[in-house]
Amino acid sequence: MEVEEIVGKAKTEMRSALTEAESKQILARYGIPTVEESAALTPEEATQMADELGYPVVLKGLGSKLMHKTEQGLVRLNLSNGAEVMEAAKFIRKAAGDDLEGYLVQKMIEGHREFVAGVFQDAQFGPVIMFGLGGIFTEAIADVSFCIAPLEENHAWQMIDELKSRKLLGAFRGESAADTNKLLKVLMGLSRLSMEHPEIKEVDINPLIISPDGNVTAVDALIVLGENGLAHERETLSGDEIELRAAEIRSAIDAMVYAQSVAVIGATEARQGQYPGIFSCMRNFGFPGRIYPINPYIDAIDGLKTYPDLVSLPERVDLVIVSVPRTLVPGALRDCIASGNRNVHIFTSGFKETGEKEGVELQQEIEKIACEGGLRIVGPNCMGFYVPASRMLTWLKASTKSGPVSLISQSGGNAQDFTHYTSSKYGIHFSKVVSYGNALTLDSTDFLDYLDHDEETKIIAMYLEGVKDGRLLLKLARKVNSRKPIIMLKGGLTESGARAASSHTGSMAGGMKVWNAFSRQSGVVLVESVEQMAGVTLAFHHLGKISGRRVAVLGVGGGMGVAIADACARVGLELPALSAETVKKLRNIISPAGTMIRNPVDAYEAFQNLNLIGKTLDVLSANGEIDNIVIWMHLDWLYIYKVGGAYLEEIARYLISEGRKHVRDKSLVVVWKQYEPNPEISKWISVVEKILLSGGIPVYEDFSNAASALSKLAEYSGWLKLYRN
Amino acid sequence: MEVEEIVGKAKTEMRSALTEAESKQILARYGIPTVEESAALTPEEATQMADELGYPVVLKGLGSKLMHKTEQGLVRLNLSNGAEVMEAAKFIRKAAGDDLEGYLVQKMIEGHREFVAGVFQDAQFGPVIMFGLGGIFTEAIADVSFCIAPLEENHAWQMIDELKSRKLLGAFRGESAADTNKLLKVLMGLSRLSMEHPEIKEVDINPLIISPDGNVTAVDALIVLGENGLAHERETLSGDEIELRAAEIRSAIDAMVYAQSVAVIGATEARQGQYPGIFSCMRNFGFPGRIYPINPYIDAIDGLKTYPDLVSLPERVDLVIVSVPRTLVPGALRDCIASGNRNVHIFTSGFKETGEKEGVELQQEIEKIACEGGLRIVGPNCMGFYVPASRMLTWLKASTKSGPVSLISQSGGNAQDFTHYTSSKYGIHFSKVVSYGNALTLDSTDFLDYLDHDEETKIIAMYLEGVKDGRLLLKLARKVNSRKPIIMLKGGLTESGARAASSHTGSMAGGMKVWNAFSRQSGVVLVESVEQMAGVTLAFHHLGKISGRRVAVLGVGGGMGVAIADACARVGLELPALSAETVKKLRNIISPAGTMIRNPVDAYEAFQNLNLIGKTLDVLSANGEIDNIVIWMHLDWLYIYKVGGAYLEEIARYLISEGRKHVRDKSLVVVWKQYEPNPEISKWISVVEKILLSGGIPVYEDFSNAASALSKLAEYSGWLKLYRN
Repeated sequence: MEVEEIVGKAKTEMRSALTEAESKQILARYGIPTVEESAALTPEEATQMADELGYPVVLKGLGSKLMHKTEQGLVRLNLSNGAEVMEAAKFIRKAAGDDLEGYLVQKMIEGHREFVAGVFQDAQFGPVIMFGLGGIFTEAIADVSFCIAPLEENHAWQMIDELKSRKLLGAFRGESAADTNKLLKVLMGLSRLSMEHPEIKEVDINPLIISPDGNVTAVDALIVLGENGLAHERETLSGDEIELRAAEIRSAIDAMVYAQSVAVIGATEARQGQYPGIFSCMRNFGFPGRIYPINPYIDAIDGLKTYPDLVSLPERVDLVIVSVPRTLVPGALRDCIASGNRNVHIFTSGFKETGEKEGVELQQEIEKIACEGGLRIVGPNCMGFYVPASRMLTWLKASTKSGPVSLISQSGGNAQDFTHYTSSKYGIHFSKVVSYGNALTLDSTDFLDYLDHDEETKIIAMYLEGVKDGRLLLKLARKVNSRKPIIMLKGGLTESGARAASSHTGSMAGGMKVWNAFSRQSGVVLVESVEQMAGVTLAFHHLGKISGRRVAVLGVGGGMGVAIADACARVGLELPALSAETVKKLRNIISPAGTMIRNPVDAYEAFQNLNLIGKTLDVLSANGEIDNIVIWMHLDWLYIYKVGGAYLEEIARYLISEGRKHVRDKSLVVVWKQYEPNPEISKWISVVEKILLSGGIPVYEDFSNAASALSKLAEYSGWLKLYRN
Repeated sequence: MEVEEIVGKAKTEMRSALTEAESKQILARYGIPTVEESAALTPEEATQMADELGYPVVLKGLGSKLMHKTEQGLVRLNLSNGAEVMEAAKFIRKAAGDDLEGYLVQKMIEGHREFVAGVFQDAQFGPVIMFGLGGIFTEAIADVSFCIAPLEENHAWQMIDELKSRKLLGAFRGESAADTNKLLKVLMGLSRLSMEHPEIKEVDINPLIISPDGNVTAVDALIVLGENGLAHERETLSGDEIELRAAEIRSAIDAMVYAQSVAVIGATEARQGQYPGIFSCMRNFGFPGRIYPINPYIDAIDGLKTYPDLVSLPERVDLVIVSVPRTLVPGALRDCIASGNRNVHIFTSGFKETGEKEGVELQQEIEKIACEGGLRIVGPNCMGFYVPASRMLTWLKASTKSGPVSLISQSGGNAQDFTHYTSSKYGIHFSKVVSYGNALTLDSTDFLDYLDHDEETKIIAMYLEGVKDGRLLLKLARKVNSRKPIIMLKGGLTESGARAASSHTGSMAGGMKVWNAFSRQSGVVLVESVEQMAGVTLAFHHLGKISGRRVAVLGVGGGMGVAIADACARVGLELPALSAETVKKLRNIISPAGTMIRNPVDAYEAFQNLNLIGKTLDVLSANGEIDNIVIWMHLDWLYIYKVGGAYLEEIARYLISEGRKHVRDKSLVVVWKQYEPNPEISKWISVVEKILLSGGIPVYEDFSNAASALSKLAEYSGWLKLYRN
């Protein structure tokens, strides 16, 4: 039977699950190696089929009402002749009683190495392929890896590689390595099946046995029917229509981002000691376009004439900002539609994110209005846009400089914190920042597509709690990421974080393993905090790509060796021991007794005489033993050796002029650390940082921050290499 | 046969490993349930024994030269009658050939759940008990837990609890839960065996099978003879003699710590732009006692008459500091012995830590001199003492205030960084600080014992790379820790860190799993960085113990909910959802629409009116739902709400006066965060911190630092409860 027939039959019989035999028939159609088997109705027929298959065999009782077959004794293994089959069949008949519908006779597959493979549905990403350790260990050990369908071959290899139990797939205790071709067939087959049959919700192959000769066989399998999360992908739109719609959305976002005219519904005078309101924030930031306060209760705000509604405005505007109590939002949206204004930012909160009935229903109401009216909505429950070039800002203060980074943030708080931090600490500025909250109509995917086409954006940072269409996000992110690195802070990866996310922007947050699969497949760099996102952005901004994970550290200070080695190891960077030849060359530069040459290089003497730093960098970068050089400035110690912060400035100036030349194609990073908050030293820190940043050298406080940034950069560079091959 | 006889026989036969049968005989003596079995010489005898044991049985070929029995087909499972045994025995005879010495007939033990248990030797901690998932998964999954012998029952439970595969030990897939009493017998038996028989180096039980009925059986076992690291514990000293020796060492350390007279061998004039030397440092810090510079080449230093050697001094001194080139150290030590000076700090480096022949040999030489002369040596390769009360300091600058914390640090650099950081950032000062480097004669255990008896020391911090006698450290730390918390930074836990540690102080660093066992057994709190050690010290200092892991957060700021929830979950703190009753009470305090009441509590309004903070704290602390309260001050936001840093000071003052009363017995912690480095805000940070610290409220920058400190405190409190029961 064909897949459609089997599924159709089950549906007719109102079954949500296929039988074991049906399930394996379908798997076989998708190239998945399954155990040889036949169904029989009587003990006699079973015996005959066993004779045909060849011994030893397994005999199972069949019946749609039979559950927990093993526990009930309805599965008999290793039967070695006809008499044993006959006896087993009789036993099964007795044990199963009236529920018995027949027998399944299978070739007995030997093998201790049991795995599982399957498909399940993720609320955001649809079908996910699963592979892991099986047998009785499946639940207990939970050694599984995921990949979002559709799978490509290199994803399948990565899945296998991620398992701790992957050793079992190699040659193991006298048994042959698993037939990798067949393993691949299993995973790729599951992927194709899940993509081609959206009516299949779950597939569970357990066990998938690796025989001593390395053969791979699906011995038992279960397919469950249902909704599989691909429904929306089967829209009737053509590729051209989809692109047309995307182009429309991009052009709407462009109009908002570069708005010449803005209306603020619910504009008020600024109040002291409180958030002054969006209208004031836009004016404070120097928005140069036409701005219309909408407020039926007063005549003028801040010297500007107010209007009672949008319909009364002299023009259609590029952006309407809605900042009224939540119960008035539906009316405001209707006003938008009536006046022909389609681009809207809803600042107001109190919707789905409350988790309460009233808010959820109100969101449903405005969603309906927005969809019917064809509105492009940013929000609700968000801060909207910060675009320095357009002088658009909805909060109190931000840099007016433009830069190469754009940010898509579900949270307004994080948008403010991240932009403040990145601008003021690292001197990196922004092109477009959007906070979009509950994502009523415009979601992260729309903004990502927009930024992909935006020439000013070179690096994309994202703060995400959830996404409506995970599959689209994956597809888009993968494409964009190969041109512009995407750095993502995913909130709600832990269970309690997910609960918090749901009450922050009403998002489903999704499990950590699925998001790790997302990162592996898309190359998107996942980070754990706003600060780390800023630090990684800094590394991408100044270094771009790096060639590998090997680090040499050049510094001065007690105890640094052990701590730095541990910090590198924690994030997967290597701190290779230097070769004898390199050590010898370094000895010629750094001479004093008692100073050992290892990695980190204790360069006490070099820091007394800057030219020696250059010579040391020459040796380190010439030897092909490392990819990155970190200069470790323990400020307390440097200050002791050559009293006066001016010397710290000298070092920084040397590094951006001479130092950079000596590292050749290696990446150069500076780390400073101050344990004693001596204000005499502290005041030089920002001087040193500014010089280094102006010279394109990333500078971090604390080694672990630099290590995490380099490690993420290496991860991205590795993905890019794989992606391009 | 008794254990001694079996071991003796093997030794006579020059075997380093016992046979399977011998191994199991010994295990059985120690109460470990082993499979029933007998040895046979001929196939006929094997058949007869199988009849006696009852079928099914397992038949194995025996022979001291037979390796990889399974792969060679010398193990035949599940034989169900005499004929099968006979046939199997003949097959084995053929396969093994001349190496066959006999047969082992065992009752066939059924069970899918295979574990391993055993004993191995750690270089620092001696016998370690191991328990983990077995069968073919042992290597592949590496799900094992360790405990340093001797085991106590609660350790055994913790070992079991730490396994990811512990689910397999419960009722599982229709099989009964493992007989916990028997499991305990296995682990406790291994512990006793390893303690009572130092000639046993390794024990490997694999598999330990859990049968469907829950029975526990050691099916195969191997015992290897050798040195087991307990040798030094079998010294001939009596308990009284050991205590007498410890008392002598304590009194020597006491003399050094409170030295009235110090001689510095190798004293020189301070040089500009360099470390000025120990003599100058001691003088600069205001050492009030008699200080003698020893230097045969000059007459006076800094106005003080020099002496050519110790013998010329007018008195014996409390402490001799040796600061001469390494080749002169042996002579300096002989001078100590000749002059009757026994308490010595060797500052000089260039010994074992170099890893080079010359240094290693020089260390052996001075060790010999020191032992023969009965010297008490701190060092070499270290900074020695910092004792504010005695005005002793060997580096440039430190607080002159005394405090409740003492530090034992193998690294001089870390001693400086940690004390600088803790004193100046958290206002916590030190009683005794010792940096002891290569630990020639005095090791961490000696200093720990001293601090245990030191009434001024309330909290002990340690930076350790390695330890000579891990078992003594465990014993001591466990005892001390129940009275004075020990916070330990263990350097070299990663592989490359261990390599670095070996070249820093010449220490063997040991594996992470063993040190985790050490922490679990001793209750010593392990931290990962100098900064974390300071943060945890702060929590211990102000909070002491805490009642649990449940945290409520009261704050203001966007996006904090998700990030805080994720940060708590990462370190194992709980952020419980508040009960409906509590939410209702909070609603009466914090009213405005749009502000949701959840945990974290978004207390925008409370921060506008400080009395509301008190009321909120009342509700949170009264409900029995939480153990700790964190006040989250997002400075950028607070500054917006009520412009002016003076208001931040007001909040801090309110918290230390009123606020503290409202939290009752809950612990209160404050966290601040500033993303926009607005200098107008920044200048208030140290003001706020000082106020809070003076009022006994720990204050941290960044939530994750507070979370890690609370989590470590909870870990300690949990251990203490267990320890006292």
